[in-house]
Amino acid sequence: MSERILALDFGGTKLSAAVTESAVFTTVDSPPRWHAHGRRRSPPDASAETDISMMIALGEELLDGAAPAAVGISFGGPVDFPAGMVRLSHHVPGWEAVPLQQQIEVAFGAPARVDNDANVAALGEWRFGAGRGVADLLYVTVSTGVGGGWILGGRPFRGHAGMAGEIGHTVVDPQGPVCLCGKRGCVERLASGPYMAADLAARRGDRTALTGVMVAELAAAGDPDAAAILARGARGLGVGIGNAANLINPWRVVLGGGITKSGAAWWSGVRAAAAETALPEVQFDIVPAFFTDDAPLWGAVALVEDLVRGG
Amino acid sequence: MSERILALDFGGTKLSAAVTESAVFTTVDSPPRWHAHGRRRSPPDASAETDISMMIALGEELLDGAAPAAVGISFGGPVDFPAGMVRLSHHVPGWEAVPLQQQIEVAFGAPARVDNDANVAALGEWRFGAGRGVADLLYVTVSTGVGGGWILGGRPFRGHAGMAGEIGHTVVDPQGPVCLCGKRGCVERLASGPYMAADLAARRGDRTALTGVMVAELAAAGDPDAAAILARGARGLGVGIGNAANLINPWRVVLGGGITKSGAAWWSGVRAAAAETALPEVQFDIVPAFFTDDAPLWGAVALVEDLVRGG
Repeated sequence: MSERILALDFGGTKLSAAVTESAVFTTVDSPPRWHAHGRRRSPPDASAETDISMMIALGEELLDGAAPAAVGISFGGPVDFPAGMVRLSHHVPGWEAVPLQQQIEVAFGAPARVDNDANVAALGEWRFGAGRGVADLLYVTVSTGVGGGWILGGRPFRGHAGMAGEIGHTVVDPQGPVCLCGKRGCVERLASGPYMAADLAARRGDRTALTGVMVAELAAAGDPDAAAILARGARGLGVGIGNAANLINPWRVVLGGGITKSGAAWWSGVRAAAAETALPEVQFDIVPAFFTDDAPLWGAVALVEDLVRGG
Repeated sequence: MSERILALDFGGTKLSAAVTESAVFTTVDSPPRWHAHGRRRSPPDASAETDISMMIALGEELLDGAAPAAVGISFGGPVDFPAGMVRLSHHVPGWEAVPLQQQIEVAFGAPARVDNDANVAALGEWRFGAGRGVADLLYVTVSTGVGGGWILGGRPFRGHAGMAGEIGHTVVDPQGPVCLCGKRGCVERLASGPYMAADLAARRGDRTALTGVMVAELAAAGDPDAAAILARGARGLGVGIGNAANLINPWRVVLGGGITKSGAAWWSGVRAAAAETALPEVQFDIVPAFFTDDAPLWGAVALVEDLVRGG
């Protein structure tokens, strides 16, 4: 029997894959390491078909002739987990109702599972990262969007149609700015990188292309507009986390994604708003993710661990 | 072996108890009925001790000499479910850290379990009422307060410290009025009966003692101030439900409590705001509770069913 798990991460424009050193992980104090790891950039004219081909080629290269025991897949978009189907992609055409699990199983001759990136990242942080030993966990990624995933009672919780964890589109300020989703003041509209960058450009009246990371850098350098926008984002996210804590009473909240590198003021803003919003009896900590980029890949490994044990 | 379950509901000032016709329920199309049912009013000078004594006497009277197979208990306040301990009551003194499960077990010579009323009512509606067959359910009671309970994956979900379900203290309008909890615009501040009544009295500048039910009646009779306050409450509750749906993606939301009798406009307001707030992919229905008053008692029965089957 094969000794390795192949992990695939379809991250929109970034394709990543990795192969574990073994297929079985004992409880460890430090997370396991990759045997091999690789990335590809999905070309501008990519389709679901070309992305899948590139990913299979990358996986085969990393496996170097070995057959995987199982393949775990993280996908950057809505997934029907029980059916193993991608519902669609907001970045790459052709992903409507793609039976990705089945295609990968055929390509590698091994059982596979696919879930959306926020659920999978939550699983990765819980199994190998900042959420180890925590039965009830909310993972939130704050990046070009704001997404989330739950571990409840020591297991991934996906909800009735796999949509659980959409903290980014909870409303925290009905008088706030309008989001593409049509609502005012949802967490993603306030706290995500592109929206904060657009708000800063609008406030300055200039056309400079900014990013969320640049907003954080300008805030750190003393720009008051950037600081105000970053603080509003931190506050919106914190209220969203506090609301989620009142509803579910998790033990820990893990924050990942580029915007979490915005410095101590951002973290204090998030923590203060979350603590104010949660009831006094609702206690939890808010900690940075352990993994910088690899939470979905490690989560993809965790997603198929029991298939390997079962075989 | 005994054939009946005793259910006790410590509802603040109201004490209710009931005895089932049998201890085992098959899957049924219509909910089971009580063999006996009774209520007592807790006196103004009540303490935990006097309430417990009254409840034991009421239970013995209803059992009429029979021993119960098990005793399920609903308590109107925070409970440490695994320990079987009441944490405190906001209505009656002396409830700090009371080992209620153990005291009831001793009194009736049968295994008992205790949980807070919102969790227990959710369980009652799920097992015997409007939530039958629904694996992922949010129950919300809208009354003198706004509380909630979850069934997730076909089981009660209580969170890390038993505090899950506190939808009443999620923030939906940070510019809204100040709640006793210290925050602005939480769902309970906007949607609960006493707060709506206080808002109407303040708007009228009079000192008439109003209730939430009277606000609904005045709104139905065409009073524009009452209608505006009731509509704002419905909207706040709907946004809270939509946020909860984005976070957890339940299949159904069941609403109970006196304020849910406020008429069609209130229900449409709640449903419209919830649907606007939830993402298009997050589908769920919002339905009235099946039980008017007995959801906690039937939930208390469900809480101990497996003890009876196990024995």
